[in-house]
Amino acid sequence: MTAPSPEHPALEMQMELDADLHRSVDRLKATHNGLWDMATYAMGWSGEGAGPETTGKRLRPLLCLLVCGCCGADWRAALPPACAVELIHSFSLIHDDIQDGDATRRGRPAVWKLHGSAQAINVGDAIFTIAFSVLAESKSDLAAEWLRILSGTCLRLTYGQFLDLTYEDAQRITLGEYQEMIEGKTAALVEAACRLGAISAGASAERLDAFARFGRALGLAFQIQDDFLGVWGDPKVTGKANASDLLARKKSLPILYGLERSEKFRSLLAAELSPASIPPLLAELAACGAREHTLALSRKWIDQAFESLNAAQPLGEYKPALETLAQALLERRK
Amino acid sequence: MTAPSPEHPALEMQMELDADLHRSVDRLKATHNGLWDMATYAMGWSGEGAGPETTGKRLRPLLCLLVCGCCGADWRAALPPACAVELIHSFSLIHDDIQDGDATRRGRPAVWKLHGSAQAINVGDAIFTIAFSVLAESKSDLAAEWLRILSGTCLRLTYGQFLDLTYEDAQRITLGEYQEMIEGKTAALVEAACRLGAISAGASAERLDAFARFGRALGLAFQIQDDFLGVWGDPKVTGKANASDLLARKKSLPILYGLERSEKFRSLLAAELSPASIPPLLAELAACGAREHTLALSRKWIDQAFESLNAAQPLGEYKPALETLAQALLERRK
Repeated sequence: MTAPSPEHPALEMQMELDADLHRSVDRLKATHNGLWDMATYAMGWSGEGAGPETTGKRLRPLLCLLVCGCCGADWRAALPPACAVELIHSFSLIHDDIQDGDATRRGRPAVWKLHGSAQAINVGDAIFTIAFSVLAESKSDLAAEWLRILSGTCLRLTYGQFLDLTYEDAQRITLGEYQEMIEGKTAALVEAACRLGAISAGASAERLDAFARFGRALGLAFQIQDDFLGVWGDPKVTGKANASDLLARKKSLPILYGLERSEKFRSLLAAELSPASIPPLLAELAACGAREHTLALSRKWIDQAFESLNAAQPLGEYKPALETLAQALLERRK
Repeated sequence: MTAPSPEHPALEMQMELDADLHRSVDRLKATHNGLWDMATYAMGWSGEGAGPETTGKRLRPLLCLLVCGCCGADWRAALPPACAVELIHSFSLIHDDIQDGDATRRGRPAVWKLHGSAQAINVGDAIFTIAFSVLAESKSDLAAEWLRILSGTCLRLTYGQFLDLTYEDAQRITLGEYQEMIEGKTAALVEAACRLGAISAGASAERLDAFARFGRALGLAFQIQDDFLGVWGDPKVTGKANASDLLARKKSLPILYGLERSEKFRSLLAAELSPASIPPLLAELAACGAREHTLALSRKWIDQAFESLNAAQPLGEYKPALETLAQALLERRK
């Protein structure tokens, strides 16, 4: 094992994380082979087109490991919770795609599209279980504490998903309700990744709190930027259709803001939508302040993320890598 | 707190178990109210027609508590895993009903029928999570060990469900494949209930093994009797239609046996089915030995259950209650 090179400070992390993730899912291989096949597809490792694009960026587990390293401990101490966090993320994507009817995930058919909803529910359940197994079988003194945090986080996730599904049929969603939803759907797991990393390092209560606040702010900023890009993102960069969230009437931040503040936007969005509807809708979102509000809120959470990161006083050789990762997350264009 | 009366040795257990189950699900009440509503319906406590019939019999957690008591310990030591086992059972029913398209559960609409599949997946995920939370938050020294067993059991459950779903589209299922499926779908959780009860009592390795074997045999016998009743049960007692599994071509033990052994049964079952098809199908199942085989296998597991129970040498005041519960499970008519 060599020291991480300065050019790729997180490269060794990524390799060990990937090996551990494989090991955790491979427990299905010997005795549960058919289920293992579906799980490796869901993790992005197998099936047509499998490659770096289909595994995702493993942002949450890398955050977990980097935070652990930045608390001055060996980041390997956080490998079990890092794996668990990524497995929970994968599980939630599998079930979300069924619930939302999304046929595509990372450029390939979603699990339910390939194997049917019934098996996809089951693969999700299996990966969820493995996340808990990884921690329960870790033999670490921290196992019970990790499990307490992970299960609490999963409850926040399911509640966020519950709200998201409920909002689909709702006439009117307030900005406060939107905030409650993204706290569960997006911020909870990013916050948990950071919290678990700090706990694994035996960080002080103050540093732990600062890293948890950093994670939450990062998650919220990330989601709000996602909402921004769903309306104003460059299709050539995002790979999505122009203003796709507008045409889908998705209850994202700028759209909810427009619905709350502008009678004109409400009537424009209530009409039948086509690509020709986009320019007047965009004009009204700008006029009523929705664009500005979205950017301001995103900026607020970015500032809070970096403020908390400073308060956490990250240490040592992994500090630049953590800052780079946060920067990349917060300056996304897609 | 009074000593259990001899007439109702498990009554106090049931009351404390129910209180703990309520407490565990009520963690959703304050902050996750809408999700809590759906969860209490799924647990059988709320909604139209809620009553003793809709909660189920809580057999698995009672087994867990009785085994703990029969190892000479205070059965309250096993309350957290008993709750967790029942929550896992509830979660699996919610997802199973979606997967199988079963619209009715315990005489009421299944959760998915009432709230849609998307929310039902999510309520299942929430109850699944709570099962792990109950153990992780128990502050018991046994928490990590309980969680290890529970997560291993859930993996066996999801594998059993995977096989069951796979078999639906399969041309031919061997009796060995059938056995593998019910080991996961039915036996794993009953075995875990007994194992967790014995572990909570700090039982010796020998007694623990004997109780685990007892649980497995009980689960297998229970499932095979269920299969028997699906073909030969008295509709007046079971509440199901006459020979319902035959008409649904369910891949249950007697039907798989008939398909494997009798050309005549194969062709009878391949034809269009109506109530008039039942007498010749039943006659052929008897002629080819399927009925006898099902009864013999059920008898085998019942014998093994009682043999293991004897080997476990249950102690004290809860021994009669455990024997009565096992007897009731093994002499079911519905």
